[in-house]
Amino acid sequence: MKYLSPAPCAVRLADPVLAPRQEANRSATIPASLKFCEETHRIDALRLAWKPGDDWTPHVFWDSDVAKVLEGMARDLLLHPDPAAAAKLDEYVRIVVAAQQPDGYLNTHFTLVEPEKRWTNLHDWHELYCAGHLIEAAVTHFETTGSRLFLDAMCRYADAIGAFFGRGRGQKRGYPGHEELELALCKLAKATGKKKYLRLAKYFIDERGREPNYFVKTEGWQTIRLPSIQADAPVREQTDAHGHAVRWAYLACGMADVADATSDAVLLDTVLRLERNATGRRMLVTGGIGTSPFGGEEFENDWHLRNEDAYAESCAAIGLALLEKRLHAITGDARHIDVLERAIYNGVLAGISLSGDRFFYQNPLVANADSRYKTERQAWFSCSCCPTNFCRFLPQLGELCWALAPDGSEVRLLIPAASTIDLPNGLRLIAEGKYPYDGRVSVRVEASSARNTSSASFTLSLRIPGWCRKWNIAVNGKRVRATVKDGFVTLQRAWAPGDTILLDLAMPVEAIRANAAVADDAGRVALMRGPLVYALESVDNGPGLHRFEIDASQEFRLVPAKGLPRGTVTIRGEARVWERPGEALYSAAPPRARRKAFTAIPYALWQNRGPAEMRVWLRERLC
Amino acid sequence: MKYLSPAPCAVRLADPVLAPRQEANRSATIPASLKFCEETHRIDALRLAWKPGDDWTPHVFWDSDVAKVLEGMARDLLLHPDPAAAAKLDEYVRIVVAAQQPDGYLNTHFTLVEPEKRWTNLHDWHELYCAGHLIEAAVTHFETTGSRLFLDAMCRYADAIGAFFGRGRGQKRGYPGHEELELALCKLAKATGKKKYLRLAKYFIDERGREPNYFVKTEGWQTIRLPSIQADAPVREQTDAHGHAVRWAYLACGMADVADATSDAVLLDTVLRLERNATGRRMLVTGGIGTSPFGGEEFENDWHLRNEDAYAESCAAIGLALLEKRLHAITGDARHIDVLERAIYNGVLAGISLSGDRFFYQNPLVANADSRYKTERQAWFSCSCCPTNFCRFLPQLGELCWALAPDGSEVRLLIPAASTIDLPNGLRLIAEGKYPYDGRVSVRVEASSARNTSSASFTLSLRIPGWCRKWNIAVNGKRVRATVKDGFVTLQRAWAPGDTILLDLAMPVEAIRANAAVADDAGRVALMRGPLVYALESVDNGPGLHRFEIDASQEFRLVPAKGLPRGTVTIRGEARVWERPGEALYSAAPPRARRKAFTAIPYALWQNRGPAEMRVWLRERLC
Repeated sequence: MKYLSPAPCAVRLADPVLAPRQEANRSATIPASLKFCEETHRIDALRLAWKPGDDWTPHVFWDSDVAKVLEGMARDLLLHPDPAAAAKLDEYVRIVVAAQQPDGYLNTHFTLVEPEKRWTNLHDWHELYCAGHLIEAAVTHFETTGSRLFLDAMCRYADAIGAFFGRGRGQKRGYPGHEELELALCKLAKATGKKKYLRLAKYFIDERGREPNYFVKTEGWQTIRLPSIQADAPVREQTDAHGHAVRWAYLACGMADVADATSDAVLLDTVLRLERNATGRRMLVTGGIGTSPFGGEEFENDWHLRNEDAYAESCAAIGLALLEKRLHAITGDARHIDVLERAIYNGVLAGISLSGDRFFYQNPLVANADSRYKTERQAWFSCSCCPTNFCRFLPQLGELCWALAPDGSEVRLLIPAASTIDLPNGLRLIAEGKYPYDGRVSVRVEASSARNTSSASFTLSLRIPGWCRKWNIAVNGKRVRATVKDGFVTLQRAWAPGDTILLDLAMPVEAIRANAAVADDAGRVALMRGPLVYALESVDNGPGLHRFEIDASQEFRLVPAKGLPRGTVTIRGEARVWERPGEALYSAAPPRARRKAFTAIPYALWQNRGPAEMRVWLRERLC
Repeated sequence: MKYLSPAPCAVRLADPVLAPRQEANRSATIPASLKFCEETHRIDALRLAWKPGDDWTPHVFWDSDVAKVLEGMARDLLLHPDPAAAAKLDEYVRIVVAAQQPDGYLNTHFTLVEPEKRWTNLHDWHELYCAGHLIEAAVTHFETTGSRLFLDAMCRYADAIGAFFGRGRGQKRGYPGHEELELALCKLAKATGKKKYLRLAKYFIDERGREPNYFVKTEGWQTIRLPSIQADAPVREQTDAHGHAVRWAYLACGMADVADATSDAVLLDTVLRLERNATGRRMLVTGGIGTSPFGGEEFENDWHLRNEDAYAESCAAIGLALLEKRLHAITGDARHIDVLERAIYNGVLAGISLSGDRFFYQNPLVANADSRYKTERQAWFSCSCCPTNFCRFLPQLGELCWALAPDGSEVRLLIPAASTIDLPNGLRLIAEGKYPYDGRVSVRVEASSARNTSSASFTLSLRIPGWCRKWNIAVNGKRVRATVKDGFVTLQRAWAPGDTILLDLAMPVEAIRANAAVADDAGRVALMRGPLVYALESVDNGPGLHRFEIDASQEFRLVPAKGLPRGTVTIRGEARVWERPGEALYSAAPPRARRKAFTAIPYALWQNRGPAEMRVWLRERLC
């Protein structure tokens, strides 16, 4: 990788959007998820407490939920050191490790309920997916606490998987039905320095979709079921992003990791091609992917982007963000941060309430009065991948704002949210401002300890977001003339404590239109400002948002929000609200309009003030 | 009933739309359906030819398909007497009757495959639904051939059902999971004069949804499954049209029949209330009902009318037409003929190809390049209710155009399609014209035989369609001043051979808008002319129909169609086609328009010239 993420503790957020979400995760999301894991017997399952006849049965995917909460706890511990939280995490890690079988295997359903069915249905049953999350949790636990307990246990599990699966004599040539293990094994290889885990990851990537097809030949599935799990062709031959979007995103992360670790240019090209398809033709304006509401939360065809009923699972937006982080790290291309930023500020954060304890599974862009997906956020789901994914993702928000060249020669400010990073060279960079509500960001250089007063020579690279058309940079009060390359302005010099860089990103309200091929957005406009997608909510505008029509050329006003966190900026403007008079269902009566002021709020904040209609794409007045 | 349908043979169609469909049914639909019934072993099942180990198994609903084809053959025989066809029908009727068990029971699945499960799962297994179609076929067979063979057999079956189900000691208090038997029993009561069948129909209607709920208590279903089969409350307490739309329509027909036969004003009010909800808030502009694509082809909430992905099953439109025919017959209100006409000319006829041998199961109002329901019509379905429903419905088209007061005092022209009806009074009425492509219709009075030259005194009532805003009537060249009452102009006099009535219904192109509450149609306009809903198809207009915007105030032109049946009238006009330049998925580039001529064809004729995009609701230019 050309660019590393800073270690978790090295970035402290202080911005108006990401920092409060991280805090809510610590104070609400993680405790609530732990509570539900206890109440639903997910922890009891790991205590191996299930007996036949109990009124609960461990589900094949339960272990993954606990693993994701533990990963979140480990990440959060480093952001907020706390002996009580550390002791609690240790207690849970010991429960998980104690559930491991003598041969290394660890899945509570198949240990307790159906031991004879272990690894027999990789298509539907999530053993290898759970293994991936357990390994990710163990690696994070090791990296943030230094303890090898969980890591060593998961090495034994990975060894058992590596012994069972593969191309050798007596091995099963299977691979995960729900991808995730691939990327986890790459992390395990990096954490332990053991190449065998990387080889196993590469095996799973390369075996996927090969003929004779494992799922058809060995498990007896119909060919029609293969595209939804990306097993319809060898991954290197796949030409578009298809199937279940969470599976796809995790697979793509694993492909990127393997490509990077093995310098496999062909595999990297493949994942970049698939990502280009996913984000260039199959992604909602919010960064949501996997829009189909029919069955599989799957990608739909190119340009087929529905708004109402769009599935756009919260986990899929998180998966896309994790992928884009990797692709930037490998390629250095700021385009990936444009997508990352779009996903985080819109598709991801919409999935969780400001309070941190209620969640959306689906994230459509329209909620009419009686839309199918006009549900309120829920406290938990029987299939609870989304809440627990927030537990582990939100602590990473700070790391996503910065990137470091491994040799110390360059520091990149990817997302200019107010945050502080301690650099290995003894300096500290402090970004300040109200981003994403204000495009003016200052970056101060400080010494990270009082003893250090010396300067350090490195390149400070500032991302100029893809949405930004006008910007200024000044260093120590003096305007810098610079050009953008690969999305960055680079400032190379010896930086000393006291230096200040001002980045001013012009952030007007932009009227965004979709590609002319997108039927559902035709004649419509979405309001964006900086990375934020805005939406109308009935709380501010009354019901019947489908009747609103916007002249995009008007002067919009920016106004502080009501009933939303301090600092939230809303967009005010004037709409024409069209009505066709009369009660009849169909009539020739012509519609008539009245003028009405409207208020748009950031999409990610919708339904935090009670049940509401919501609409992102508004009818555009075109004359 | 205030108004009877004329007997099948009494109406001969000669119009440009209905007559060719009836002819295609005789020459293509019925033979093709019979062939598939043979090839798929549906007839073999009735031959009781199935043995364990065979590579086919009779399905619980198979018998209904054969019954519907036989009903169609019987109806067609009367329209086109043909000894060979009569012999063929007789042969099949004998096969069906021979499949009946000694106790009267007749369902090939439960006779052959699972005899022990007879009448144990009324929720999912379609025994009583099949019984209904068998009885309908038998009644039609009796009425059109005079043979009692089939009728008597089905009386024995109805007796067996009546002995098994009911509120008496030892009887099962069940009722159909898929309604249809109720209306069939009313027909059987009328054909045989036996009130017991009416009482059984009334029992099934009244028992439905009563507490303790049969499906919950006896069959163990969850309460959540009840609304989809209209069993969530007693039918008289139901306030909206909900659940599976075909089931609902057949239930409503049964309710109307029982209400009429028992002079039950409360039940009639109930069915009228439900019908008002269905057609006033939950019906597509084409007369399609049951729009939900999720699971159950069910009604959605008030005003929730999707266009793309709308299910709108062909059978549901047929069911609605059958209901509206009944409601007019009972109430005399022309409003029901407005709905009937809308359903027939649009939602029903769209379900079948002009060739008569290919069918839609779903009838959405938008087909984008990659819509889920953008399939071509298919030759058959494993669940083949729709093709066989056309077999029996299309021969009824003529009967739906006229209505007769039982005492001979009034004859009503409901749909002024070119057709000839022989009246009991010795006169013949011949409607001529090109309706629905032209609003000018002449009705000539003739003697039905050369011997008759006398006049007859009766009221001739001409329906003024709800869509018509301007009309003229002349009798023998002299303009008549008349008022419309309940949708009709009544002409009372002694009519004599040679009399001619001219009905001139102004039929301009109308720009129709949906109720302001319908989100999916907001800012859109549908073009109608007379009863016909028009649609743009890519065959005429190129792809990307979502980009077309129409100024509804323009002068539209009427032009003969290309590649469609002679006489088909298309609508020509000018659209603005909007494009947002650039390849990017999202961009701030403003859209730009070019002018383009467009051609709209009748919706019911779409996809008769190869695969195509299609769109009914077009963006309306509003300035």
